Order: sequence, then C-alpha cells, then structure tokens
Amino acid sequence: MRIGAIEAGGTKFVCGVGNEHGVIEDSVSFPTELPEPTLERVIAYFSDKNVEAIGVGSFGPLDINRDSATYGYVTTTPKPGWNGYDVLGKLKKRFDVPYGWDTDVNAAALGEAKWGAAQGLDSCVYYTVGTGIGVGVLAEGKLVHGLIHPEGGHVLPRRHPDDDFPGLCPYHGDCLEGMAAGPSLEARWKAKGHELAPDHPAWAIEAYYLAQAVTGAILMLSPQKVIMGGGVMQQPQLFPLIREEVRRNLAGYVNAPAILSNIGDYIVPPGLGSRAGLCGALALGLEALTSRG
Amino acid sequence: MRIGAIEAGGTKFVCGVGNEHGVIEDSVSFPTELPEPTLERVIAYFSDKNVEAIGVGSFGPLDINRDSATYGYVTTTPKPGWNGYDVLGKLKKRFDVPYGWDTDVNAAALGEAKWGAAQGLDSCVYYTVGTGIGVGVLAEGKLVHGLIHPEGGHVLPRRHPDDDFPGLCPYHGDCLEGMAAGPSLEARWKAKGHELAPDHPAWAIEAYYLAQAVTGAILMLSPQKVIMGGGVMQQPQLFPLIREEVRRNLAGYVNAPAILSNIGDYIVPPGLGSRAGLCGALALGLEALTSRG
Repeated sequence: MRIGAIEAGGTKFVCGVGNEHGVIEDSVSFPTELPEPTLERVIAYFSDKNVEAIGVGSFGPLDINRDSATYGYVTTTPKPGWNGYDVLGKLKKRFDVPYGWDTDVNAAALGEAKWGAAQGLDSCVYYTVGTGIGVGVLAEGKLVHGLIHPEGGHVLPRRHPDDDFPGLCPYHGDCLEGMAAGPSLEARWKAKGHELAPDHPAWAIEAYYLAQAVTGAILMLSPQKVIMGGGVMQQPQLFPLIREEVRRNLAGYVNAPAILSNIGDYIVPPGLGSRAGLCGALALGLEALTSRG
Repeated sequence: MRIGAIEAGGTKFVCGVGNEHGVIEDSVSFPTELPEPTLERVIAYFSDKNVEAIGVGSFGPLDINRDSATYGYVTTTPKPGWNGYDVLGKLKKRFDVPYGWDTDVNAAALGEAKWGAAQGLDSCVYYTVGTGIGVGVLAEGKLVHGLIHPEGGHVLPRRHPDDDFPGLCPYHGDCLEGMAAGPSLEARWKAKGHELAPDHPAWAIEAYYLAQAVTGAILMLSPQKVIMGGGVMQQPQLFPLIREEVRRNLAGYVNAPAILSNIGDYIVPPGLGSRAGLCGALALGLEALTSRG
C-alpha cells in the first residue's frame, strides 16, 4: 500500500508517504504559512506520489463530525487565515482518494496504538506538551470525538503552593496549558526548558501540573497507556517526577498492577518518537483505506 | 423478549424483568446484606421469571475484563464480605443465559443512551452523586472500560475559596467525592441536603465542585450529553448553578452550540428518573442477548 500522511501543525507541516506497517518511505517538512500557499505545497508534494489514501492529523479545533456541513474544516483557531478554512475540501479537489481526518493528537494516539507504545492495546491517552497542550484519546478501540473532540489541554489544575505564575491561557489563565505549556515554562523562569538544569525546581512544578491532568485522565478513562510527547517532554527527568506525582495523587485507589507496580511502563514517551505525528496521520489514512476500500 | 435486570447497589439491590423497549414489567428491592444471602434473594426472584438474559450493573470496583480470571467479581471494596466475591459466577451456576456485567454507572449511561436523556446519541457521561460519586462513560457507542473502569468520582478539584472542609475520602481527603458526596455535604453543614434551603450557600459550593468535574469530563471526552443523578442531584436548584459554573470554567473555549446556547439541554437529570439504574442493567442484558444470541 502507498498511503499519504499529513501532519498539519500550527508551526510546520510534515507530509509523507508510508505503508500499512507504519514505515514512512519519504517525507518533507515546511513552515505553516497562510492556508492556500501551505496547501499548494502539500498538493505539489503528493502530485507524483500515487497514494491510495491520505490521512491528515491537524492542529485544531477542527470539525471532525462527518454529518456536518463543515466537516474537514479548521474551525475557531486564532491562527491568521485558518479560521474556517476547508483543508479537506482543498485536498479532495485534487486527489480523489479516501481521507482520514482527525486532530493531530488523536492521530498520534492511533499511530501509537497501531505501531508504537500502545501497540496491541485498545485504549490510550496521548499528550503533547509543547507550544500548547493537546490530548488525543483512544477508548475501546475508537478515537474519541463526541460533541467536537477532546480539548484536555485546558483542564483546571490545582495551583502548586510555591507557584504564583498567573498563567498564559487567553481563555482560562491558569488552566493546564496556561501553566505548563512551553511558553508558560519560559515566562515563569525567564529561560527555555533546555536551559534549565534537570534538578531545577521548574521540573517539579511542571510535573505537578502535568501529573494532575494525567491523574484526571486515568480516573475518567482508565486508559491502558498514557503517552506523553512534544517539545517539553524531551526533558527526560519529567517522566519519573510525573509518575511519582500520579501515584501520590491516586493514593492506591486505582488498584491496577500497571499503576501500582509498573508505572514506568505505563506513563511513557511515544514509541514512535518524533515520528508519532506523521505515523498517526498515516494510521488515519490506513483506516480510511481499509474501512472504505 | 424477557430480560432480567439487577441493579446491585451498595445499599440496596433492585431486581426486575423488562423488555427490549426499556419497559420494566416487574421489580423488587431489598437491602444489600452479605453476598451469599443477598444473591440467594436475587436467585429466588428470578427462579420463576424465565429470562433470556441477565444484565447486572454493580457497585464497584469490579473486574469487567472478559479475559481476566476474576471477571465477574467485585474487587477491592471495603464493604464487608464483598471484597473478591464472584457475583457473576454465583448467578451463572443457577441461570445458564447470556450475562451483561458492568459498573452501575456505566449501565446507567447505556440505559440513558438507549431510552433516556441521551437517546440516539453515541456518547454521554453519567454522574451519580449520592453516598459516593460515580461516573459512567459511553464514548463512540461503547462503554469505556480500559484498564479497569472509570473512577471519575475521585478527581481532584480546586478548593472553593470559602470552604475549609477537609474532605472525607479515606484515600484522597478532598477529592470530588470527599468534598461533594452526600456525607460530605452533611458533615460540612451539619444537616442533610433536603434540610437546607434552596438558596443556602451550601449549593453554590456543591455546584462549584461538581461543575469542575463536569468541565473536566467535557474537556477530556467531549460527550454529547452530561447526565447527573443520585440522591444529592434531587435538589433541582443544583442544575442551573452547575451549568453556570461549567460555562464560566469553559469560558467559551469549547465552541459548541450545545454548550454555548443550549446548556439547559446538555447537563440534565436522568431521562429515566429513578429507573436509570435498573433500566441500565436491562440495557446490559439486552446487549448481552443481541450480541451473542
């Protein structure tokens, strides 16, 4: 199979071609500009690739409701030019193939379940912690959409007792994203994450917020795996801190060996590493092909 | 069809017989005692009912993993005698029919999606707020199990600024259940809920906690309906307070008409009223029959 994959990020687009085993054979990356020139580059890339299907994992919010008149659109993003842009419509005009279309984080969750850290499982929660915080959810083998799609980056954590940072979210101030995304980390400490030593107090506070979100995800969804990627999670010292906080928060209540004894294999980085997003888009394309082809 | 339904609560058991339209034709209720005498009463009730399947919605935690050696057991409950009791095994010895088996709150979520407030929808979150707080989750048409099953009564809300109640949860102290279940309400105000006037400050604080949990559920799961039942929710003044708090928490971020314009139809009491639990068990029995029969 030859499947097209598009990781449509707010900062950069990655396009690739891969197969049903999750192997990316070719890929290209370019900055996200206004929608028309960006999509023209996507179309130019795929014009000689002969793909049988295309999967798109996109920054959001998105309309992923197949019954909606604006299915395939990016909706209420503040990103200039993209609000209400019909991404899927633009692609469909050029390539008449089955399409998969979901959030970048739902795509990554699916890719991880097919070929990565959640392989063989039918549930996982995927966090990306970078410029913003996004959450993808796979439950009982299906990506969760519901009314719109999960927006779990904006849950409301308790404030760390040593933290008086007001938070940067324009909607909520001190929600998870407002307190723990990359820009908040940088604004609080006047330094970028990679400039802070692994034992800097920043990481305990960062883990405190992220662990509350993960605790909430475990209590609401009981996922079989929690996967955490994105730029901020490149700091490996965060994982043991988050695991410890999650166990402290749960206090033995969720009586599962995965949490009580094996939490090191439960809250993990993406098995697909930096390819999680593109492989996720590939997985969406594969699903579109196999469910309709 | 003649389907048996068992609402196995920590305080009382309700047994009934109903049909595929959600109509309960007969039912009986008795207090929950030690497991053997309780199950003997259940068996006596069904002995002349000729049911084709039985659905059980039970207090938990439960083992609902079909591949587990202890599938059908109540697991780590503090309730005397029930820890590790094989509920389903006991029933199967007597009645050789298909069984549905899930948490009481997952059952109620399913029943509400079949015949109640979430009819025709493929996602909803069901809260029961009573002696404890439980959460059932239906996502993409399936009840969410994952590692164990949702335990969303124990999420960690922010403390209300006017509240210094320490919380009653033996695991977490001031988790949602510790702050907002019936016993906490009573301990905080030295009065039962129904003794407090509708404009008592208790209700704003109660709504503050419950709304945080609902906000988190919306952000993580994007359900098409949020249903809130149980003894505490019999105070109708809670609904408008919770809806207002949820909208304040979301601050317009989740751009869905269901929330922005129609929240009165979005956060609602059970459409099946006090029958939600038993109808939920009936729905589990119906699913067991139609998926295997």
